[in-house]
Amino acid sequence: MTKTPMNSVAIIGKKRDGIQLDPEEIRFFIDGYNRGEIPDYQASAWCMAVYMRGMSYAETSQLTQAMVDSGEVLDFSDVVDRVVDKHSTGGVGDKTTLAVLPMVAACGVPVAKMSGRGLAFTGGTLDKLESISGFNTQLSRDQFKTLLRDQGIVIAGQTGQLAPADGKLYAIRDVTGTVSSIPLIASSIMSKKIAGGATAIVLDVKVGLGAFMQRLEDAEELAKTMIRIGEDFDMEVTALISDMNQPLGNAVGNALEVREAIDTLRWGGPADFVEHSLVIAGHMLRLAGVAQDKDLKDARAMLQEKLSNGEAWNKFCQMVENQGGDIAQINNPDLLPRAPIVQVVEAERSGYLQTINSREVGLAALHLGAGRYRKEDPVDHGVGLEIWHKVGDFVEKGQPLFTIHARTESAAEIARHRVGAAHVWSERPGMPLFYNTLFTETERVPGRIEP
Amino acid sequence: MTKTPMNSVAIIGKKRDGIQLDPEEIRFFIDGYNRGEIPDYQASAWCMAVYMRGMSYAETSQLTQAMVDSGEVLDFSDVVDRVVDKHSTGGVGDKTTLAVLPMVAACGVPVAKMSGRGLAFTGGTLDKLESISGFNTQLSRDQFKTLLRDQGIVIAGQTGQLAPADGKLYAIRDVTGTVSSIPLIASSIMSKKIAGGATAIVLDVKVGLGAFMQRLEDAEELAKTMIRIGEDFDMEVTALISDMNQPLGNAVGNALEVREAIDTLRWGGPADFVEHSLVIAGHMLRLAGVAQDKDLKDARAMLQEKLSNGEAWNKFCQMVENQGGDIAQINNPDLLPRAPIVQVVEAERSGYLQTINSREVGLAALHLGAGRYRKEDPVDHGVGLEIWHKVGDFVEKGQPLFTIHARTESAAEIARHRVGAAHVWSERPGMPLFYNTLFTETERVPGRIEP
Repeated sequence: MTKTPMNSVAIIGKKRDGIQLDPEEIRFFIDGYNRGEIPDYQASAWCMAVYMRGMSYAETSQLTQAMVDSGEVLDFSDVVDRVVDKHSTGGVGDKTTLAVLPMVAACGVPVAKMSGRGLAFTGGTLDKLESISGFNTQLSRDQFKTLLRDQGIVIAGQTGQLAPADGKLYAIRDVTGTVSSIPLIASSIMSKKIAGGATAIVLDVKVGLGAFMQRLEDAEELAKTMIRIGEDFDMEVTALISDMNQPLGNAVGNALEVREAIDTLRWGGPADFVEHSLVIAGHMLRLAGVAQDKDLKDARAMLQEKLSNGEAWNKFCQMVENQGGDIAQINNPDLLPRAPIVQVVEAERSGYLQTINSREVGLAALHLGAGRYRKEDPVDHGVGLEIWHKVGDFVEKGQPLFTIHARTESAAEIARHRVGAAHVWSERPGMPLFYNTLFTETERVPGRIEP
Repeated sequence: MTKTPMNSVAIIGKKRDGIQLDPEEIRFFIDGYNRGEIPDYQASAWCMAVYMRGMSYAETSQLTQAMVDSGEVLDFSDVVDRVVDKHSTGGVGDKTTLAVLPMVAACGVPVAKMSGRGLAFTGGTLDKLESISGFNTQLSRDQFKTLLRDQGIVIAGQTGQLAPADGKLYAIRDVTGTVSSIPLIASSIMSKKIAGGATAIVLDVKVGLGAFMQRLEDAEELAKTMIRIGEDFDMEVTALISDMNQPLGNAVGNALEVREAIDTLRWGGPADFVEHSLVIAGHMLRLAGVAQDKDLKDARAMLQEKLSNGEAWNKFCQMVENQGGDIAQINNPDLLPRAPIVQVVEAERSGYLQTINSREVGLAALHLGAGRYRKEDPVDHGVGLEIWHKVGDFVEKGQPLFTIHARTESAAEIARHRVGAAHVWSERPGMPLFYNTLFTETERVPGRIEP
C-alpha cells in the first residue's frame, strides 16, 4: 500500500476530526507555513481545529520543537553557567520583572531577559522601561551577551530571529479568535524561551478577570503543559498560578508602574506586590541553586536583605545606566513622564470591596492611552491609574478610591465612570475567589499523566 | 450600556464558543467577506468553527439569504409560470440530468437548469454535455431565457453573478478542510438555486462511499435543512436520499455517460438508472403540478409513455440542436469521443458481489483523465469505465466485470488494479446497505423542530 504524500488539507482534516497528528505532520505544517508555502487561511483553519480539539502533550511538545527549529537558537553557555528566566502570561499592573530582576541579580544570579510589549488590556515590560528617557531595549545579540557577562543583568526586546514560525502563527491567531488555546499558548511561550537560551524558568500563570485564562483549571492545565514541555527540552520549570481578579499592586500604566517598582526596591511598595515579587524571585533563586528550601525561607531572607541594604536598588540603577537610561529620573521619579490631569476619585459610599474588576481597570488604562489596541499604536507613558484598595478592604465614604492620570478631561471622565463601576461593594467582608498573594505551586507532572 | 460595534474576530469567537449568531452578524460577516474587507484567513477560521459547532436552521437560512443577496437574483416569471429544477449533491456515474430534463420537458413542463463541472471523484453535467461537439454551455442570460421560453428546455453554466459570496466561500472551504459541513453545504446549494430563479426543486441527496455524505443520518439532516431553507424562501422542495455505495448505472466518464443517457432515452438503459430517472422526473412533475399522486403512479405512466413514444428522445435532440451540438454524434454515439484503448476485464472468480466501492471507481476514472483534480484542469471526454454488475449480483468466473477506456496503457494498467480491487466478493448473496433504487422521501420538516 502506498502512503499518501502529506498535504496541508489532510492535516487540517485530521486535527478537525480529533485524530492525533504525527510529529512529521506537525513539522510539515509549521515548516510549510513558516516558508510561506502553506497560506494564512490554512493556518487559521488549523488553529481553529486545534482550539476546538486540543492537543496531546506529545503534539504540543512537537509543535514547540518545530517552532524552535524554525529560527535561531541562542546559547549563553560560553558566558554564564545557566540562564534563569521568568515569564508572566500577562496581567494588569504586572510590573514584577522590574523589581524581580534586580533582586535576583543582587543575589549573584545573572539575569538576561527578553521581554515583550503590551497588547489590549495587558501591559508590556518594554513599554514600561521606555518611560525612562534614553532606556534602550533594542540591543544586538553581542551587546546583550556582553551586558550579561560583565554586569549580570540585562533586559531587552527579542534579539535575533527566535521561533519565527511562532511569531507568524501568533499574528494569525490574534485576528482569528484562536488565541486562548492552551496548547497554542504553551508552545508559543515555551518555543520563544527555549530559542532564547533560557535553561530554567519561573512561569507566572495569571488567572482571573484580568488574565487570558479565566478559570483556575485552565491556568493549571496551561502550567502543567509548560512544565511537561520543559521536561522534554531539559529545561527546569517552576510554574505558579497567581490571581488576576484584581490589579497587582496599585499602579496601572507605564511610568506609574516604574515608580511603584522603584518604591518596592526601596522597600516601600504595596504589600501584595512586594509579596509577589519575593515569591517569584525566590523561585528563581531556587532554580539557580542559590537557595534550596522548598518553602523559600532562605531565599526570602536573602532577598529581603538585598532590599534593605540597597543592593537590589543599586542593581536596578546599574541596569538603567548600562542601557542608557536617565538616572536622574529614577532617583527622582517625579521627573518621569507625567499626565497633565491628575484626579483623585473618592469613595461615594462606605463598605467592603467585593470585586475590583481588573479587566475593566486594564481596559480603562488602555483607553487613557497607556496601552495599544493594535501592535503599531504608540503608548502614552504618563497616563494610567492608581487603585488604592484591595478586595476585602473596608473603605470609608470620602476616602481616596483611585487616582486618574489622564491626557484629556474627556478621557478622565470616561475612566472615572469605568473604574468607579469596576469597584463592586458589599455590606459584609465577603471572600474574594483568592488573593493576589495566594500561590499554588504546580508540582512536576507525574509520569502517569499520559499524552 | 453601549453596544460593542460588530467585528469579525468577535463573530468568529462567538461561533467558536457555540453561541448562535444574530442575523446582522451573519450578514456583516458574509457581506464583509464578499467585499474583500474580511480576509480569507478569518473566513476559513469561521468556516472551521461552523464545521465544528454547526448552525441552527435559523442561522443556516440567514446565511443563505446573505449569500443570495450578495449578487444578482434571476427571475423567469415573465417567461414561465414556474421553474422546476433538480440538483444532485454529486456522485459517481450520475448522468441523471441528461435523461431527466428531456423526459420532464416532453411532459410539457419547461426546464431550465444551471449546472456545474466535476471536481475530484464526482462528475459534472457540463463536462458530460461538452462531449458532444459544438455543444455550447456558455449562454448569456438572454439566450438562456429565450430558449426556456421558445423551446421549454435549456441547460447551461451559471449565467450572471449568482451568489458570489457562496463562490468565494466555497473556494476557501475547498482548501481548508471545511467542505463537508451540513449547514455550509445546504446554504451553498440553496443560495445558488434561489438566486438562479428556481421556484421548486427536487434535491437528490447522495449517501455512501461515492458521495460527500457517508452516513445516512447526515444525508437526512442535509435534506431536512434544505427543505427548511426552501420553506423560508417560499420554494417547494422535495428531497430524496439515494445510494452512492455503488456507481449509478454502468458508465462512468463523460462521453460514456452521454451514451448511457441516450440509451436510456431510447429505452435501453441500465435498470437502476432508468428507475432513478423515473423517480427524479416523477417528483419534478409533481412539483410542476402535472402529476398529483404521492406514489408517482400517474407520473411514471406519463414518463414511460414519453420514453416509449420517442418524445423524450426528441426533446434531447432538440436541446442538443438548440445549443449547437452535433446531432450526428447523438444519433450515432460511436461518433462521440472515444479512447484509443478499450480493455474488457473478466471476473477472476465466481461469487456474489458484496461491494463495488464507488469512490474507488470515481477516483480511477479521475486518474484516467475523466475528471479534474483542480478546477483549471481539462477533462478527457473519451476515457472512463463501464461497470457491468451491481451489488448482490452473482458473477461467473470469466464473465466481463468491467471495461476500461483509457488514453495510455499505463493508465489502463492502474485502472485495472484499482477497479478490480473495488469489487469485493462474497460466497453468499449478502445484503448491500441499500440499493440504488431505494429512496427515502424526506417529509416536510414538521413545525415542532426548533432552530
